[in-house]
Amino acid sequence: MDKSFYINRRQALLDRMKGEKGIILFLGNNESPAQYRDNCYKWRQDSSWLYFFGIDEPGFAATIDLESSEQTIYADDAGVDDIIWSGPVPTVKERALETGIGKTAPADALADALKGRRVHFLPTGRYDNAVRLSQLLGYGVEDFFSEGKKGCPKASLPLVKAVIELRLVKSPEEIILMDKACDLGYRMHTIARKGISLGRVEQEIVGDMEGLALGEGWGVSFPTILTQHGEIFHFHEHGHPIEPGKLLVIDAGVENNEHYASDFTRTYPTSGKFSGRQRDIYQIVYECNELAFNLTKPGVSYRDVHLAVSSLMLDRLGALGLVCGDTASMVEDGIAGLFMPHGLGHNIGLDVHDMEDLGEDLVGYDQDQKRSSLPGLGSLRMARKLKAGNVISDEPGIYFIPALIGQWKEKGIGKGCINYGKLSEYYGFGGIRLEDDVLVTEDGARRLGSRRLPIEATEVEEAMAEDSLQAKEQK
Amino acid sequence: MDKSFYINRRQALLDRMKGEKGIILFLGNNESPAQYRDNCYKWRQDSSWLYFFGIDEPGFAATIDLESSEQTIYADDAGVDDIIWSGPVPTVKERALETGIGKTAPADALADALKGRRVHFLPTGRYDNAVRLSQLLGYGVEDFFSEGKKGCPKASLPLVKAVIELRLVKSPEEIILMDKACDLGYRMHTIARKGISLGRVEQEIVGDMEGLALGEGWGVSFPTILTQHGEIFHFHEHGHPIEPGKLLVIDAGVENNEHYASDFTRTYPTSGKFSGRQRDIYQIVYECNELAFNLTKPGVSYRDVHLAVSSLMLDRLGALGLVCGDTASMVEDGIAGLFMPHGLGHNIGLDVHDMEDLGEDLVGYDQDQKRSSLPGLGSLRMARKLKAGNVISDEPGIYFIPALIGQWKEKGIGKGCINYGKLSEYYGFGGIRLEDDVLVTEDGARRLGSRRLPIEATEVEEAMAEDSLQAKEQK
Repeated sequence: MDKSFYINRRQALLDRMKGEKGIILFLGNNESPAQYRDNCYKWRQDSSWLYFFGIDEPGFAATIDLESSEQTIYADDAGVDDIIWSGPVPTVKERALETGIGKTAPADALADALKGRRVHFLPTGRYDNAVRLSQLLGYGVEDFFSEGKKGCPKASLPLVKAVIELRLVKSPEEIILMDKACDLGYRMHTIARKGISLGRVEQEIVGDMEGLALGEGWGVSFPTILTQHGEIFHFHEHGHPIEPGKLLVIDAGVENNEHYASDFTRTYPTSGKFSGRQRDIYQIVYECNELAFNLTKPGVSYRDVHLAVSSLMLDRLGALGLVCGDTASMVEDGIAGLFMPHGLGHNIGLDVHDMEDLGEDLVGYDQDQKRSSLPGLGSLRMARKLKAGNVISDEPGIYFIPALIGQWKEKGIGKGCINYGKLSEYYGFGGIRLEDDVLVTEDGARRLGSRRLPIEATEVEEAMAEDSLQAKEQK
Repeated sequence: MDKSFYINRRQALLDRMKGEKGIILFLGNNESPAQYRDNCYKWRQDSSWLYFFGIDEPGFAATIDLESSEQTIYADDAGVDDIIWSGPVPTVKERALETGIGKTAPADALADALKGRRVHFLPTGRYDNAVRLSQLLGYGVEDFFSEGKKGCPKASLPLVKAVIELRLVKSPEEIILMDKACDLGYRMHTIARKGISLGRVEQEIVGDMEGLALGEGWGVSFPTILTQHGEIFHFHEHGHPIEPGKLLVIDAGVENNEHYASDFTRTYPTSGKFSGRQRDIYQIVYECNELAFNLTKPGVSYRDVHLAVSSLMLDRLGALGLVCGDTASMVEDGIAGLFMPHGLGHNIGLDVHDMEDLGEDLVGYDQDQKRSSLPGLGSLRMARKLKAGNVISDEPGIYFIPALIGQWKEKGIGKGCINYGKLSEYYGFGGIRLEDDVLVTEDGARRLGSRRLPIEATEVEEAMAEDSLQAKEQK
């Protein structure tokens, strides 16, 4: 990306930090060893660093002096021995100029530059940088992580808020890259769908998907969920063969080489055709996904969209006899949370849950909003009043989770309105989730990517029939 | 693996620790966040933990009391909320029984169990466990990493040595798993070779390879090296299209689902045929690889094998007019290090550089051996006298590294015996490396995996011709 983008972003940050004293510290990531120190996980730069500086190499740091406006890049040049092992690399000076900064200093000059100053820093999600912050600023290592939803009390709230404001609204050049990530995500999901065949081990499909993600992008944007147990949200085992009559949930995204994420979910009938019961539930989730998209526009809060989806979902589940009673009061009581214990969506950008290292509530809630304690709504990651340039996921789901149903029943929750008898027929059903990535535009919304993955039930069955026809022809 | 294996390994460890007082602490790994705390790198358990306990889940620890022989597993059971998100999982008790241990305790009981005891622990390569050790035992986070080749002064030397002794000699059940890893590695390299075609971007081939590694195994055992700049050892960019007339070095391995590694290197002529000069150098590297294999047997030190390879290499380079003079004295002066700045090989097992987190010298050198300071030999990771059950890489290489040649020339190193004039003709040549994985047997050696990747020059050209024929037929 042209250096002017980075210069402008840093200037916008300075404008938002006007009136603050001290110095801003940004840390790029270090390598993260998986086993011994020379065998590292795939290199991933920090997302806020990528946004403001772009330099995609380990071992960098930067300061922006709020009083003098001076910007400095800290890193060490490669020595002769490094050059033998790593080849000729640009100097720190050259890399700094690429991001529009003229002043550089060696890495160990950073500690002195911070001494005696009010240091504004961001929390981190990674151990390597938590250790580095601890060494630079004191406090314990754990003090530099965001504590769940609340953020990190030691970090600079003005800085965190300013970074969130900027990164929440995607610029035209970012939207081009997000469309690109979604196009690659489309292809990855298409490979996955074509790979579904009875008896095949789930892991093989995951390999096909990640091969494409790595071959044309950075890799997957989060560990792929591909499971015939859609009712278990964090299920990362892929050792099971595809069985007939099941629902296969595939929730997966790619990160492109520019590090923007996509995140789609589709749910497929493993045999190629939905059963009657599967189709009934699928249809509800599909309608919820469509409703959310249709309601998405500037000025509407995503909290209200979540609630509208909850209301439609309960209406339709009522028609199936699974709940009964007044929909509005069921929504108010959080009854939808039994079927959809997660929120309707989250922000997406350089992180697939964008900026979650900065604190989930700070990213996803406006100052006048409070996180609910209701089931489902309480798990909503993005509740804000929408603005043009926001990129969010639209991912309703319905699940039948025996452990959760059992817990509610035992506690007597929703005794009058939940038909527990009927619900027990759905044990073993699994779950359904349908997710698109949505850009809020000036007057509404647009799904990212040039094509939408098949989603309507009949359209999905037709695509799967076409897939198996093609597979036969290739044999 | 059956629990008796783990019980026996822990008993063997206790036998080796006889006479020591105190308590042994083993930490399994925690999750390692890549971005925010919920978006983690692919889960990888600690290798020594896998060896002694096998439990392939985050958040576990164990103690073995050297005085009472009592063994305890520390971890927390999933709560009701966890079960909703992660499904029903075995209890800590159940997992402990699978590894043959009856006593369990909650995670936070560990600190008390260590209080006032002499704690024997292993160093770690990962930040997550360095932080955990720092919280449990005091000292700074950096104190728990091995310092380069020297190991970690704060860790328990008797424990480190005992673990190395055990893990260095692979048992029959481990060899079955390593053969399996090598068979998958063979297939991954075959896909890579078939994927070479002019104009194709390197990253696409890497994607094909890693797709297979993830589809049928845990993934790659280290970041894939696939480069037309073989002379740059740590080159992890894959953005270049395949150009005619180049040498493509592919150094890559898989880790199978049981976490054993393979590590093969082949070097291919991008156009399918070696040029005369390429073939001359290739032939030397091939002969060195064969010689090393033929010398490998119990009782021989791998240091001596490295030196024999250096000698053959200099002989053959002499025949090409690149060096001249007495081979023995050139070997003694480390002249081979200009062409092969790395060592002949390393140990392989649950880590691709096995146990390097425990300290490179402790793993690779016998007590009566000292690491050389000569170029090349000084980088040898495995110098030990070989024992049946050792698994080592056999990976000679020849590179023409302009920066290194320039450095030596400037310093006047090897003035009388290196033909710098002739060498300058090889700038731009790149490099060649050929690597197999070798098991030391009772009376010699065996290459792991049921088939060996094509390696002799003509055999490689024939395989590539066959590949392109097949590719044409498929079109």
